Amino acid sequence: MSVLIKNGRIITASEDYVADIFIEGEKIKTIGRDLSLQADELIDAQGLMIFPGGIDPHVHLDMPFMGTFSSDSYETGTRAALYGGTTMVIDFVLQTQGDSLKNALKDWRSRADGTAVGDYSFHMAVTDFNPETKLEIKEMVEEGITSFKTFMAYKGSLMVDDRQMVGLMEEVKKQGGIVTTHATNGDMIDFLVAKHKSEGKLSPLYHYLSQPEITEAEASARFADMISYTKSPGYIVHMTCQGALDAIRDSTFRNQKVFAETCIQYLTLDASLYEQDFEGAKWVMSPPLREKKDQTALWAGINQGLVQVVATDHCPFTWEQKQLGKADFSKIPNGHPAIEHRMELLFSEGVHSGKISLNKFVEVSSTNAAKIFGLFPQKGTIGIGSDADLLIFDPEMEHVISVDTHHMNTDYSAYEGWKLKGKVKTVLLRGKIVIDQNECLVGKGNGRFIKRKKVTGII
Amino acid sequence: MSVLIKNGRIITASEDYVADIFIEGEKIKTIGRDLSLQADELIDAQGLMIFPGGIDPHVHLDMPFMGTFSSDSYETGTRAALYGGTTMVIDFVLQTQGDSLKNALKDWRSRADGTAVGDYSFHMAVTDFNPETKLEIKEMVEEGITSFKTFMAYKGSLMVDDRQMVGLMEEVKKQGGIVTTHATNGDMIDFLVAKHKSEGKLSPLYHYLSQPEITEAEASARFADMISYTKSPGYIVHMTCQGALDAIRDSTFRNQKVFAETCIQYLTLDASLYEQDFEGAKWVMSPPLREKKDQTALWAGINQGLVQVVATDHCPFTWEQKQLGKADFSKIPNGHPAIEHRMELLFSEGVHSGKISLNKFVEVSSTNAAKIFGLFPQKGTIGIGSDADLLIFDPEMEHVISVDTHHMNTDYSAYEGWKLKGKVKTVLLRGKIVIDQNECLVGKGNGRFIKRKKVTGII
Amino acid sequence: MSVLIKNGRIITASEDYVADIFIEGEKIKTIGRDLSLQADELIDAQGLMIFPGGIDPHVHLDMPFMGTFSSDSYETGTRAALYGGTTMVIDFVLQTQGDSLKNALKDWRSRADGTAVGDYSFHMAVTDFNPETKLEIKEMVEEGITSFKTFMAYKGSLMVDDRQMVGLMEEVKKQGGIVTTHATNGDMIDFLVAKHKSEGKLSPLYHYLSQPEITEAEASARFADMISYTKSPGYIVHMTCQGALDAIRDSTFRNQKVFAETCIQYLTLDASLYEQDFEGAKWVMSPPLREKKDQTALWAGINQGLVQVVATDHCPFTWEQKQLGKADFSKIPNGHPAIEHRMELLFSEGVHSGKISLNKFVEVSSTNAAKIFGLFPQKGTIGIGSDADLLIFDPEMEHVISVDTHHMNTDYSAYEGWKLKGKVKTVLLRGKIVIDQNECLVGKGNGRFIKRKKVTGII
Amino acid sequence: MSVLIKNGRIITASEDYVADIFIEGEKIKTIGRDLSLQADELIDAQGLMIFPGGIDPHVHLDMPFMGTFSSDSYETGTRAALYGGTTMVIDFVLQTQGDSLKNALKDWRSRADGTAVGDYSFHMAVTDFNPETKLEIKEMVEEGITSFKTFMAYKGSLMVDDRQMVGLMEEVKKQGGIVTTHATNGDMIDFLVAKHKSEGKLSPLYHYLSQPEITEAEASARFADMISYTKSPGYIVHMTCQGALDAIRDSTFRNQKVFAETCIQYLTLDASLYEQDFEGAKWVMSPPLREKKDQTALWAGINQGLVQVVATDHCPFTWEQKQLGKADFSKIPNGHPAIEHRMELLFSEGVHSGKISLNKFVEVSSTNAAKIFGLFPQKGTIGIGSDADLLIFDPEMEHVISVDTHHMNTDYSAYEGWKLKGKVKTVLLRGKIVIDQNECLVGKGNGRFIKRKKVTGII
Repeated sequence: MSVLIKNGRIITASEDYVADIFIEGEKIKTIGRDLSLQADELIDAQGLMIFPGGIDPHVHLDMPFMGTFSSDSYETGTRAALYGGTTMVIDFVLQTQGDSLKNALKDWRSRADGTAVGDYSFHMAVTDFNPETKLEIKEMVEEGITSFKTFMAYKGSLMVDDRQMVGLMEEVKKQGGIVTTHATNGDMIDFLVAKHKSEGKLSPLYHYLSQPEITEAEASARFADMISYTKSPGYIVHMTCQGALDAIRDSTFRNQKVFAETCIQYLTLDASLYEQDFEGAKWVMSPPLREKKDQTALWAGINQGLVQVVATDHCPFTWEQKQLGKADFSKIPNGHPAIEHRMELLFSEGVHSGKISLNKFVEVSSTNAAKIFGLFPQKGTIGIGSDADLLIFDPEMEHVISVDTHHMNTDYSAYEGWKLKGKVKTVLLRGKIVIDQNECLVGKGNGRFIKRKKVTGII
Repeated sequence: MSVLIKNGRIITASEDYVADIFIEGEKIKTIGRDLSLQADELIDAQGLMIFPGGIDPHVHLDMPFMGTFSSDSYETGTRAALYGGTTMVIDFVLQTQGDSLKNALKDWRSRADGTAVGDYSFHMAVTDFNPETKLEIKEMVEEGITSFKTFMAYKGSLMVDDRQMVGLMEEVKKQGGIVTTHATNGDMIDFLVAKHKSEGKLSPLYHYLSQPEITEAEASARFADMISYTKSPGYIVHMTCQGALDAIRDSTFRNQKVFAETCIQYLTLDASLYEQDFEGAKWVMSPPLREKKDQTALWAGINQGLVQVVATDHCPFTWEQKQLGKADFSKIPNGHPAIEHRMELLFSEGVHSGKISLNKFVEVSSTNAAKIFGLFPQKGTIGIGSDADLLIFDPEMEHVISVDTHHMNTDYSAYEGWKLKGKVKTVLLRGKIVIDQNECLVGKGNGRFIKRKKVTGII
Repeated sequence: MSVLIKNGRIITASEDYVADIFIEGEKIKTIGRDLSLQADELIDAQGLMIFPGGIDPHVHLDMPFMGTFSSDSYETGTRAALYGGTTMVIDFVLQTQGDSLKNALKDWRSRADGTAVGDYSFHMAVTDFNPETKLEIKEMVEEGITSFKTFMAYKGSLMVDDRQMVGLMEEVKKQGGIVTTHATNGDMIDFLVAKHKSEGKLSPLYHYLSQPEITEAEASARFADMISYTKSPGYIVHMTCQGALDAIRDSTFRNQKVFAETCIQYLTLDASLYEQDFEGAKWVMSPPLREKKDQTALWAGINQGLVQVVATDHCPFTWEQKQLGKADFSKIPNGHPAIEHRMELLFSEGVHSGKISLNKFVEVSSTNAAKIFGLFPQKGTIGIGSDADLLIFDPEMEHVISVDTHHMNTDYSAYEGWKLKGKVKTVLLRGKIVIDQNECLVGKGNGRFIKRKKVTGII
Repeated sequence: MSVLIKNGRIITASEDYVADIFIEGEKIKTIGRDLSLQADELIDAQGLMIFPGGIDPHVHLDMPFMGTFSSDSYETGTRAALYGGTTMVIDFVLQTQGDSLKNALKDWRSRADGTAVGDYSFHMAVTDFNPETKLEIKEMVEEGITSFKTFMAYKGSLMVDDRQMVGLMEEVKKQGGIVTTHATNGDMIDFLVAKHKSEGKLSPLYHYLSQPEITEAEASARFADMISYTKSPGYIVHMTCQGALDAIRDSTFRNQKVFAETCIQYLTLDASLYEQDFEGAKWVMSPPLREKKDQTALWAGINQGLVQVVATDHCPFTWEQKQLGKADFSKIPNGHPAIEHRMELLFSEGVHSGKISLNKFVEVSSTNAAKIFGLFPQKGTIGIGSDADLLIFDPEMEHVISVDTHHMNTDYSAYEGWKLKGKVKTVLLRGKIVIDQNECLVGKGNGRFIKRKKVTGII
């Protein structure tokens, strides 16, 4: 099976040229001007851009939660991702405190394997670091799980304390992995949540007001301190605000590198959305949306090279599920649907606005995630021998986001009515056309679990 | 004329794969696995790495100085550069205060055109910004000179004051250029130079002691302030120290981007070299070499994305010329020979030591300079349609630097006896093999003046 | 001649107690509970506070300007100061470029001596530092002039360049003095002034817009750098903004101490006053008024111990004089009348609002200036043997500021209609009652030139 | 009972003059030149300095520990303090987790009341903040206990988590108190302690290496963050290092004030003392001694106004008690004897060396503690109506510290052989001569528990 894509403008994290791409099987074999090769399929990309398939390293599909599950299964979630040009996701396995990493991985793979439509991997969320867990780290790395997520919040269920954190960092560094973290001070947040509830302040607005910027800035700084202390590679997920970014900036003075990921919503939405009654529940997520000044800081952070990745933290719930928190913001399932829109939003708001370059667009939507998490060069670029994960994109086509047209399994859109410029036209996954003209050509089980390599924190 | 390079490991600022490269004329036409194309020349790159030709954006060739000239002509200098894998340089035209930019450019091109062996461009050093100069900025940009160098030191000959600086920035921004600067506080340095001389402290050590870190930190911060004030793209040349880098780090807090260039000597040599009598004159340059802590900071700055370029500030003088300052450090011609060694030193000290990745090596030695200064994608990468400027490199070959074997026109080496791992094997410039097996296959006039494009400061 | 003040609440920079004060001649002789001493005059201070007489270390009286003079003479100015509880001022002698310090001092003393009603000293503004000036520094210190003012703005008339600055610092440090500075980047300001004028933007608002925060932040940082380089004691006058204060904060990280003075107007007024036509000329001063955020920062800086002094930069002009700039903001005489209101404004806005403590009020309005500038313990406190310069103050009395009642020689008030709580009742200068019940009991020539001691920068 | 002290040079936090002091009963009644008052006792202080009695706000006397007690009782400890010019101490009550504050206070007072020779108060260390504890805060404030100590280390016995911390801060602020903290990240330290022990690294040196600077910097920054979040007054005890001080400096940028205390040992001793076998146990304390750079930073912090207090953390153990950790550094009782030497060390090392002024000496050794902790003006100064707690000091007298001459109940001196300049001559406590000519004239029970007032954090 071979594919020839003609005359696209090929953009990688550093390249920008017009050429043909020849794919043989799952891999890119040749790139050149005027390729005269025979292929089973021919795609005309004249006037279009070709990006590496997006990688979203922060999603939660089919995640058990309060007796229910996040509303996208590995099938619907990865299919929606493909529609949006994201060909691979990294989801999170959550260790149950008291149980093993192994069992958690088995559980999560049982839901994903044979179901996902796009490619996937997992971060391992270590919620209980102890002598047994420590022994499993090496094993996980051998299984291709080289990143270990921690929570500095959610005491009693997910949170590790600082002693566990530095213990984990030391072991992960030794085994060739990277530690990532949800950096908010859970204790401070728990205090405000309880306070607001005791005062009868129960609307979604108080979800926001219970997680002020400083709770994230504090934890981000502390994480950087612990990284400095252990010298482990480190990565902060879903950074939302100037305060947290400033913690990274502060850490540069001691010659340190901490990776940072923001999410598309923190670049485009703000906390004014919480100033409507229960409607604000649509955007209840943790950390919450912030202010315009924070958007400005994050865009700057991307150009400064201090923010490497734009993900989504996609964790969708239906409007009915959101009603669980109707009477109490702390019961609202946290998360919003975004997996499908990340690439188009980032292109329209980032590239068309002149905020970031085309190369930077690819770097933060695909390549850096691949490099940081051990997927490169198999994924994350358009190079000879790489998986032919390609996004053929019409940069000028305008369209509108709506629940009526999206493919995620939620009954509302968090971006309803947004007008974007630039749209996915065709998507290839490992050489196969999976999306074309708004149609998904593959089904359940098309996705593959991708083993990841050891990493060093130097990219 | 066509060339086929087989089986090299191709490294760009973001890519890393093994493939064949097919060159037609001056350009790269096809890249792929197992290319079955006929070519006039065949190069076997099995086991070798292929990088984009190096770009050194900071050199001074045939520069008039005190009645003499820097000792490398455009011929010897660019040839030595080619030997070291650097296929293009950006030199500096110096406006004479009171005279026009145009005349200065004409003067400099008269020495370079028809002489250079490798490709070249010029930064325009604006030493006298006034209403007439202002009118010439647009003209220069149209000539392909899109970067404008300033000096914050050398009052009375090269220095512009802050009013001229911000005036220049405003005009350059308007015309699509970038302002670069030699960021040291000339006044503070002049004070210490005079003081040391009045105290009879005349050895090369006092060159170093007359330019303490704070003189560079101050000016770097001030330049960043002026960039913030004018919103012009900005770039600091030859950054040497933690203090100056910290000024950049400080500027990140206000969401600002200032580009920074260091030079290979500041990453590898230190000020202990000045603690020998007149021998230290070999490394008399401005700013001077610094301390180990500064090397650590600069390497970190590269990985943090805050230092984008590694250049040389190549400005060679013979040992006889250096004697001009035998009795007075302030008369020692400033500069050292490095144009030939930059790529190999950076590879050996940076990549082999594990300090930077292969992609980062290419980014800072070639690609970023091309992007910042308007040469990309013609130069600075290995992409379809780009100039076939290629460095075929043996990463494991060991060799020793020596005046006996180098090709620069100086009678001493600043790195005498350094053992490096990784050596240039073959170099192509616009599709032509120019260096092979330690032999230069082209002569005077082979180089071409490259017009540069407008820039925006977003890369 | 003796005075006994009964039962006042005595507040110094560190003390707070109720006691009697017995004054003999010009000095305080005894302080105690229930003093049974005979005195020529008895003052009942029951329910009142007693502060050390205020010291305003930044005023410009009878200052030659554009063929006219600032509108308060030493007589009217120091009298108004006394009305407001300020018993001593430090004015500025301005060296004429090309002439000596000696001559300038002579000129200034000729206007002040025999005229001033309150006590006074001078800072020497060095506008032309050269080998001759250098020799005069020692002489000035011997004359009791131990502080040397510099301007980083006003090129061509007052500005010294950085080389002169560090040269001056070195000499001043050697002679036991302190260098103070007007810290704004004159070059950057000159650029914006010219730009605004060329664009026909001529209203007072453009005075403000020509001196953005960064012009002050930059120069403040540079001054701190030069202080760090020379180790001289240093002091920044009339700091207005967060950016400049942040420069001081930054300098603390290298274990440095730079003194900072703000003025009462920067704590209480803001730039919204410029948003009225020519009326804004009343507050045209340099640096200009800033924003609310800057007020917040400066109050915080006072409590952080980073801002030591609250002065006025009193430089009054009549409304007629202000008309000089009717058609061009750059011609508006810079300055506003405040010498009379500093203490009452600071008390009402600072102490009554809970922003600062009573001790801090005294520290920043009197004691610190005395210590920094070599007047302590003769001035600046209520101690045995100190000059009996006392302000007897009714902390609860309310009053309104108005041109109708003030004593400064201007025909408008910059604080017209402000309602304050806390009012001067009686003022003593060197043991003599000079103000009582809104009446000045002494006349021209009552003031004395006070020689100041050497200083070290350690207080 | 009355005392007249003649002709001393009286130094307070802001004053400096020569005068007589007349004391009636426990209070200072009159201060003046040539007082002609009759007194029961006459002291000639000609040529001597008189300071307010020192206040050491950080001591641990008779503290229960591992089945034994810190080796100074309230009798021996406060007597030694008096010998050294410290007339009042603030000790710490430690709540037992699970028990009430009330019971803890009762327990501690049972050991101190009727025993102490000098005056004393207590901080209440809240180790278990819960709804019951919360109700006790008001009660404690009414009892005159207005400061609440927390531990960010010692998990399982003393540590509160961040949720308890912010809860406590909120309540303390409401009740007019201040929260203080031992700011080190206990979790990180526990990790290193366990690691070193598992590696067989058991000497005192590993006590030091288990508490690197970053563990203190982190916690200091986090505490400042929580203070910023709750707006409570806050105070960091025993700050040792640049990293922690930098956290305070960082906090100034958001207009925040956090008080900081260092201890005399961190200004004078360094970690090289740990590089001897078990001998280093003499200085095993937490945090440990640091480096020369940290001393430099702390002295600078004092002059910058960012460090307000110099205490001791006096917690003495005999050499026999120290042997508990002979085989394991983590078993060494933490603490060293210093209560007696603080004032003389600070004078000799700080004032004589020119590092700090006389006024600053008083400010940090007495006045600031009094103001911050609600003792002023009863204690902490020489003012009319204040307690006549006075230290009459010979600034030129030389002496040597030795276990042979000190009065603390330890069999070694941490400063053995140190030569100091400046010695306590006579000490008065509430008008009574308690120390004279190296003799203590009062006995057990002479000290008084001092109730403290509410505080605001504005001093």
